Amino acid sequence: MNYQAPYKDMQWLVAQAYQQQGLNNVDALEGFDPELANAVMEEAAKFASGVLAPLNGVGDTQGCRFQNGTVITPDGWKDAYQQFAESGWIGLALPEEYGGQGLPKYIAQPVNEMWLSANLAFVMFQALAQGGSEILQAFASESIQQRYLPKIVTGEWTIAMALTEPNAGSDLGALNTKAIPQADGTYKIKGQKIYITYGEHDLTDNIAHLVLGRTPDAPAGSRGISLFIVPKYQVADDGSLGEFNDVRCTGIEHKLGLHGSPTCSISYGDDDACVGELVGELNQGLMAMFVLMNEARLSCGLQGVALGELGFQRAVEYAKERTQGSNEQGERVAIIEHADVKRMLLEMRSETFALRALGYQIAAQIDATEASHDALKKNRVALLTPIFKAFATERANVMAGQVVQVFGGMGFVEETGVAQILRDARITTIYEGTTGIQARDLLFRKVRADQGAALTLLLDEMCDLATTFASDDAMSAMAKDTRQTVNTLRSLLNSHLLSEECDPTSLNAVSVPFLEAMGILCCAWQLFNVLAYTKTQSHHDDAYMQNVKALTAFYGAYRLPAAMAALKTVEQAGAGLSQYEF
Amino acid sequence: MNYQAPYKDMQWLVAQAYQQQGLNNVDALEGFDPELANAVMEEAAKFASGVLAPLNGVGDTQGCRFQNGTVITPDGWKDAYQQFAESGWIGLALPEEYGGQGLPKYIAQPVNEMWLSANLAFVMFQALAQGGSEILQAFASESIQQRYLPKIVTGEWTIAMALTEPNAGSDLGALNTKAIPQADGTYKIKGQKIYITYGEHDLTDNIAHLVLGRTPDAPAGSRGISLFIVPKYQVADDGSLGEFNDVRCTGIEHKLGLHGSPTCSISYGDDDACVGELVGELNQGLMAMFVLMNEARLSCGLQGVALGELGFQRAVEYAKERTQGSNEQGERVAIIEHADVKRMLLEMRSETFALRALGYQIAAQIDATEASHDALKKNRVALLTPIFKAFATERANVMAGQVVQVFGGMGFVEETGVAQILRDARITTIYEGTTGIQARDLLFRKVRADQGAALTLLLDEMCDLATTFASDDAMSAMAKDTRQTVNTLRSLLNSHLLSEECDPTSLNAVSVPFLEAMGILCCAWQLFNVLAYTKTQSHHDDAYMQNVKALTAFYGAYRLPAAMAALKTVEQAGAGLSQYEF
Repeated sequence: MNYQAPYKDMQWLVAQAYQQQGLNNVDALEGFDPELANAVMEEAAKFASGVLAPLNGVGDTQGCRFQNGTVITPDGWKDAYQQFAESGWIGLALPEEYGGQGLPKYIAQPVNEMWLSANLAFVMFQALAQGGSEILQAFASESIQQRYLPKIVTGEWTIAMALTEPNAGSDLGALNTKAIPQADGTYKIKGQKIYITYGEHDLTDNIAHLVLGRTPDAPAGSRGISLFIVPKYQVADDGSLGEFNDVRCTGIEHKLGLHGSPTCSISYGDDDACVGELVGELNQGLMAMFVLMNEARLSCGLQGVALGELGFQRAVEYAKERTQGSNEQGERVAIIEHADVKRMLLEMRSETFALRALGYQIAAQIDATEASHDALKKNRVALLTPIFKAFATERANVMAGQVVQVFGGMGFVEETGVAQILRDARITTIYEGTTGIQARDLLFRKVRADQGAALTLLLDEMCDLATTFASDDAMSAMAKDTRQTVNTLRSLLNSHLLSEECDPTSLNAVSVPFLEAMGILCCAWQLFNVLAYTKTQSHHDDAYMQNVKALTAFYGAYRLPAAMAALKTVEQAGAGLSQYEF
Repeated sequence: MNYQAPYKDMQWLVAQAYQQQGLNNVDALEGFDPELANAVMEEAAKFASGVLAPLNGVGDTQGCRFQNGTVITPDGWKDAYQQFAESGWIGLALPEEYGGQGLPKYIAQPVNEMWLSANLAFVMFQALAQGGSEILQAFASESIQQRYLPKIVTGEWTIAMALTEPNAGSDLGALNTKAIPQADGTYKIKGQKIYITYGEHDLTDNIAHLVLGRTPDAPAGSRGISLFIVPKYQVADDGSLGEFNDVRCTGIEHKLGLHGSPTCSISYGDDDACVGELVGELNQGLMAMFVLMNEARLSCGLQGVALGELGFQRAVEYAKERTQGSNEQGERVAIIEHADVKRMLLEMRSETFALRALGYQIAAQIDATEASHDALKKNRVALLTPIFKAFATERANVMAGQVVQVFGGMGFVEETGVAQILRDARITTIYEGTTGIQARDLLFRKVRADQGAALTLLLDEMCDLATTFASDDAMSAMAKDTRQTVNTLRSLLNSHLLSEECDPTSLNAVSVPFLEAMGILCCAWQLFNVLAYTKTQSHHDDAYMQNVKALTAFYGAYRLPAAMAALKTVEQAGAGLSQYEF
């Protein structure tokens, strides 16, 4: 599928995030400035359009094949992986000491967005390498780090995360995989896992599985879960490959989308010969997962942005080509001239742009946090992450539907390629924590747990920024609506969201509407933020800024009202819920 | 896929529509009362669950195959078709003089809903038979009627509608198929058509194509389009089959969904031997299409209801079985106990219920109109039809997404079967006129054309009904919000929707939000209407009515606010639209 990196947005938003998050003042980031970012993005854009995008449809059509316990990836996958690894893209934001390039996250973010737009199914291994490496760096023994990290950072081996079991999905506390301690300090692993992305494939010689399991005397529930590294082939002290480690792929899923990404069922220790090593402390496995989880949620939200962008590009391209109907002068016109088609395109464009800005700010804020350990910044990232993950992916699904709608009957025909976007997008609101789980995390752990402190700071900031647009003719309506929505939310904090009188069940029943309102407010905030930032810059690209203004005004009229509607639902938490008998 | 007809809803809503539309006073409907409806529904329910539903997944998995110009339908299709036709279901609402059962639409509506839930792909031929027969009855010559209608009504032959060409989709005025008059009064047909549902198949001996084309001296555009009946095999005067009529299937589409329904490309007259007969007057082809279009839009909206119901049933079933997470007492619970899952189920249930009620009322109103030719009732049907078509199908897409969401990772795996609902639903907002086209029809032809007269009557009725709930504690908030929304809409009529000062482009850009607001208001109105109706009835099913009350309260809190948000967008018609440069 055709894809061109939205270079102008990326340059602009990267530079803005860098400056606004104060990364120019971070010593550790010296040299890692937007100029470097631009150079990296330029190379990445070529690779994304030239190598990855052309394989996106191939992967969808062919899918992966499961044969005699092995997985055969689609044509071209192996070669693309080789090139991807050799070009150093896997270790882009991983430590230099293990062969990575050590780039900050704010630069990795636009680069990752390109991979995700160009070929989401292919590049699923990338977030696993990134998150898995961070787990190993943070928790694994020196010996494990030395043997594994250099291979993972360079892409010689891949990482797989083995969490889910048939009866333990969102509820990992229910998992049953056994880990029996051995005299030599290792563990015999035995159990069945499902939904393991790239759990088996033909791209590399070895695969390091990070497996959640229980030792025999572990406490029940989530407090008795430990993390183990379990390679497909055993790894000797010098890092060379040893014997087969009794890690068997028993099948791959036949999925709605992401056909090119193998989703594996794995059986560990069928022959009692599967050996794992503990990563971190016993029974602290879920803590290690939290490291991965934040990484994964940011990456998953970015998938929403990336699919929104891909769909937008395809929809605009088609809407400019396809002639249908006529204008008021009776001339046949391209469908992009029809106001309702334009509406759909601008819905996609404005929300994708705003969410891109939000995602880049979060990434830059993580870079800033790593340098400063600033608690306020940390809390801000923690607050925004579930919003970004859930809202960006929910909207990507809506947008993917709109792309098909713009294509009309042609969109329903698989050869056009856009139905793939709809199919691929469908999993993004489910994996790495469903929308419902993100919403519960947001409301209970990020808002109620600190008595709304982090949220109040954010709302104040949104309100102050909106106020600066109060006398701007084109923006005053949106500024007023933003402030009104923020004020409604503030009063709901007292009356409902933070109230001890509201029962948790009723609140849970409006947690997704609450998250939706936050998502929309964040988009409005980001659009205002870009406009405000441009005023401080000497270099203007007038046509571009005119478009950002139009997107902002459009968003204020077409999407912002939905935030108020969602809050109206929050106000009526629990209505009808317990009265209905299923 | 499992499916049980929602019998209680159907009985209740059928009886209500019958009474409220005054069908008991229509002489022509004597004997066709709700008691008969119940008997018919009972039989249909058995057929839907027993014969059609089990083939739904088969059709999806196998799809249709194109071989040497013929189309092979999935296993079991042929036998099911035979049974379907022999049981008289095709002619259910078609005239008795041609072998049909002549039932009114209000009875056909729930029966059709069952077919559409049980196996949408299979039963696509049914709306074609119904709509096609009505066209022939209204416009065709006596001779065509005698030769074709008995075969179609009994299902011996099927009907195909050949409208679309590669460059003429929504814009039929652009079509190019030629019709050359012959000395004997027939026409030689020559052209290529695409997207023809059941345009070729192995279910019957003959297929009657209704083809839109142009005679050589026809005016350009939509005023030069005529309708022809073009059989696959020629039909002699006595109705017996003659020679092959040069109607060739050149391929079938590989679609996102509806795999069991062949979507054909047909080439007419490759060998200059394709003969058609004119149906209706020359150049009046689009007028004949309008007959079909209304039928098709009602049927298509009902597809939305049917898919919503199917998805809801699957989601509830799974949510009751699937254990995940625990309640406040720490006990493992089925996911239906989680408030956010309940929220999704109630969104599906409340909107499907309300839209079912709306659809049944429209069908009963058509029956009433046919008897009385009451202009007010006719205008009401004309006003509601595009709302029902577009809103029910848009919501079916949202609901299908929610079904997958309830299933979590399992929903993304094709074997579970629910991804099929999402794939099948995707075309419903496109065919029979896209949502954008319905919205334009609503705003320009149904609202602006009569200066808002029909709409104002509807809004008055909504407002009056809501007022009767003003002092009902459980409903007063919803009653107030409904009235407030209606009043906002009333003032928007003057300021925007009917205003001569608003340019059509800006209005078109908010036509879909306007339609969305109308859709939600119609649902609230229907829910109130059911509650009000029960008060007039002596037989109460308390548990059922308790559920309807809960659904109504839920809808008021969770969905009604979105109507106000949509109107807030209407108020800002055109914002940002013309300023953005693509």
